[in-house]
Amino acid sequence: MKKKNRVIVCPSPGLIHTLDLKDKIVVVIDILRATTSMCVAFQNGAEAIIPVESVDECLSYQKEGKYICAAERDGEVVKGFQIGNSPFSYMTPDINGSTIVMTTTNGTKSIHCSKDAHEIVIGSFSNWSILREYLYQQNRDIILLCAGWKDKLNLEDTVFAGALADSLKDHLQPHDDSTMIAINLYKAANKDKLFYIKNSTHCERLVKLNMQEDVKYCLKKDLNPVLPVFKGDRLVNVKL
Amino acid sequence: MKKKNRVIVCPSPGLIHTLDLKDKIVVVIDILRATTSMCVAFQNGAEAIIPVESVDECLSYQKEGKYICAAERDGEVVKGFQIGNSPFSYMTPDINGSTIVMTTTNGTKSIHCSKDAHEIVIGSFSNWSILREYLYQQNRDIILLCAGWKDKLNLEDTVFAGALADSLKDHLQPHDDSTMIAINLYKAANKDKLFYIKNSTHCERLVKLNMQEDVKYCLKKDLNPVLPVFKGDRLVNVKL
Repeated sequence: MKKKNRVIVCPSPGLIHTLDLKDKIVVVIDILRATTSMCVAFQNGAEAIIPVESVDECLSYQKEGKYICAAERDGEVVKGFQIGNSPFSYMTPDINGSTIVMTTTNGTKSIHCSKDAHEIVIGSFSNWSILREYLYQQNRDIILLCAGWKDKLNLEDTVFAGALADSLKDHLQPHDDSTMIAINLYKAANKDKLFYIKNSTHCERLVKLNMQEDVKYCLKKDLNPVLPVFKGDRLVNVKL
Repeated sequence: MKKKNRVIVCPSPGLIHTLDLKDKIVVVIDILRATTSMCVAFQNGAEAIIPVESVDECLSYQKEGKYICAAERDGEVVKGFQIGNSPFSYMTPDINGSTIVMTTTNGTKSIHCSKDAHEIVIGSFSNWSILREYLYQQNRDIILLCAGWKDKLNLEDTVFAGALADSLKDHLQPHDDSTMIAINLYKAANKDKLFYIKNSTHCERLVKLNMQEDVKYCLKKDLNPVLPVFKGDRLVNVKL
């Protein structure tokens, strides 16, 4: 029997050095809220998203006047920018046909630290089924990279990674203890509707910033069936 | 009401940079097998253990002829040394009164990366109750540092950290999502007697090396009621 490819959860970009990314597909996961909002943008007709690491880089794109520029730090919109990473900011008509430049606290960093991979794909509950379908079709090891919070682990990204690893296990062998930890966490979360509220510091942080609606939105499955894949310097929506 | 001190699980030495160690107590956890074996050594009368980072450093102590020198890499005794980190190696009569110099793949590294802390204490199932009692008596934030495997997370250290954080929660507030993840993992492990066998890559690695008895020993509680604390350049057994 042919050996199965593997699925590996990397629970923080701070641990990406423990994995060899060569020939692997990395799924970048930042549920609250960067990767969810990226899916919203493509669902609303964005042409491309250019993820940049620094606010300065984002500002220099803004001066060119032809991009929608989005910057978030510590959960809030950075001064001087119209939008941050709330999913509702990416539902307006001007998103259609636009190229967005985006920098966020954790999500864009995770994309940049994955550049040695064969391919980088964006994952969120928002594009759950189409992402899963795509990963099923690939014949490679898959790394599920949780963006976390400033290199710390976070609950929602780890639960998502655990759920995805579990749902792929007919096709991909879960590998590494971090993957087993994420799968066990997902199973616990699945049994308890108030799991995030009871356990997550980032949910708490966003709720304090009055972003309950963002949190609710980001935890819903399949609202935006798009497949953002990194090509060159930008994310584009790939048709399955 | 006075604000509770916090207990924080750091799931890998590769993420220690996310925490400010100043004024905190760090508990270093390397269940399979370094911190378990350290407890065995003190229970058998060792005077002190000097943890060193490199095999070369350990060799130079060996040349002095007055230490018991132990070196382990990748689960096996390093060539040129009598012992590695099997707990059974530390039960012999020559351990009594000795000073041990030890280098291991993950455990000693975790001690060295915690040197900015107020205090470093050694934790294992082997000294569970005395450690818990000691931590209850302290009025400081506590970091439970999982040694993991080459910066990757591992199951047994995370389960132990979750169990300890959970058992301290009357006294210390669990803080950070990584702590909630560890507590949830412990609760899952607690319900399933075959949890490690089904889930852990490091257990599997040791079982392949014919170290089943080591694994069984390392998962037993309270066999060695000692409290190894780092003072200067060495661990000593502190009496409660």
